Amino acid sequence: MVTKSLINQIQNLKQKKFRQKTGLFVAEGEKLIQELLEANFKYSKLLTTENNTSFPADFILKNDMQKLTHFKSASNFLGIFNKPQYLYDFNKESDSVIVLDAISDPGNLGTIIRTCDWYGISDLICSKDTVDCFNSKVVQSSMGSISRVRCHYIDLLPFLKKSKLEIFGASLKGGAIYDLNLNKKSIFVFGNESNGISSEVNKFINNLITIPKNKQSLKIDSLNVALSVGIVLSERYRQIN
Amino acid sequence: MVTKSLINQIQNLKQKKFRQKTGLFVAEGEKLIQELLEANFKYSKLLTTENNTSFPADFILKNDMQKLTHFKSASNFLGIFNKPQYLYDFNKESDSVIVLDAISDPGNLGTIIRTCDWYGISDLICSKDTVDCFNSKVVQSSMGSISRVRCHYIDLLPFLKKSKLEIFGASLKGGAIYDLNLNKKSIFVFGNESNGISSEVNKFINNLITIPKNKQSLKIDSLNVALSVGIVLSERYRQIN
Repeated sequence: MVTKSLINQIQNLKQKKFRQKTGLFVAEGEKLIQELLEANFKYSKLLTTENNTSFPADFILKNDMQKLTHFKSASNFLGIFNKPQYLYDFNKESDSVIVLDAISDPGNLGTIIRTCDWYGISDLICSKDTVDCFNSKVVQSSMGSISRVRCHYIDLLPFLKKSKLEIFGASLKGGAIYDLNLNKKSIFVFGNESNGISSEVNKFINNLITIPKNKQSLKIDSLNVALSVGIVLSERYRQIN
Repeated sequence: MVTKSLINQIQNLKQKKFRQKTGLFVAEGEKLIQELLEANFKYSKLLTTENNTSFPADFILKNDMQKLTHFKSASNFLGIFNKPQYLYDFNKESDSVIVLDAISDPGNLGTIIRTCDWYGISDLICSKDTVDCFNSKVVQSSMGSISRVRCHYIDLLPFLKKSKLEIFGASLKGGAIYDLNLNKKSIFVFGNESNGISSEVNKFINNLITIPKNKQSLKIDSLNVALSVGIVLSERYRQIN
């Protein structure tokens, strides 16, 4: 049986302020939890509705799991994990960096984290008003990649000022990604779903880049931001390899 | 004031079986409705909470709109539209075609429709078990592109058998997209989020294609499907232009 206080604790962790206060977050699903454990994430509780598990977890009933889950349907595993503390080291800017300026949709951020993992980008810099990466929907849509990609929430202006890398900004009016050299170590900035890159951040952009669209596609004016990240990283991969 | 019967009708249209029975779907948001009207979609009702509108719509109170919306928060406009009837013409295979085999997530389908619009792909072939494109979440995440991209729900096997185009299938084990000629008129098949392309459909694939990942990214095993569609279409665009 799960206690009322545990139900409350886990339900409260839906809210960013409780995650901030406690330093905890919730992860659901066997594969995700396994990947967090492999990446040495510390946990305070692991729960399961299964009898045999590949890692130690407390058994609870399916009915009880349904009271805990952050989603419509519960999975077989739920864990309460400690949020990691990452430090960004400017002296070890070992690879290109993705910078997100006020991304608001959890599914978009999760997909961006997953895509960074695919392309070997290990540091993701998020403005402080970007949706929290330990929001359960972000954790879920990152499909385990949250265990491998480090999300740093910092003030973008001092960060961009301090970095020595070239700064590209995704925009509707810029050079076509296929015509530019994306094969150096660089920073790629992507803006909010509705408003794009903010004017303050825009001042630090060295090069605006665009994903060209079909000439007949006159009525569509933007691509999904996670998709834009993927297309830019794919083109960067092609140029490097 | 809105009647109880109107509330019921609009709430029922959340369900695919009611959309099928009535041939109707719900669209919310001014920009989306404007784009559907521009594309000559027929409607049975347009409602707004605004006093001045750029197209004729019946005025209702915000409280009432909140009873009608399919989302957490209502927008200022809601319309009941007729689902269009499209015929796919094999004799006019004017451009490449995207085929979806059992895509289940509404956000993914909406993003794929938007991406097809960006790249000028006007026909999207969906297996009958792909999520309904007139599901409100799909309509919303397509960001108006549902008015320009024709989604056909048909049996994939006879379709693939009949088509004269070369058939590429997105897979984890295939030729790298950058090394293949994607610049001809072709069919690109993408499979279900968890299971990939089904074995029956797989038999019709002429060429398996892969989006290569970073060599160090050993622990991640797949990309989001909408993102895969975008990356393949971006590479196809690059080769054509």
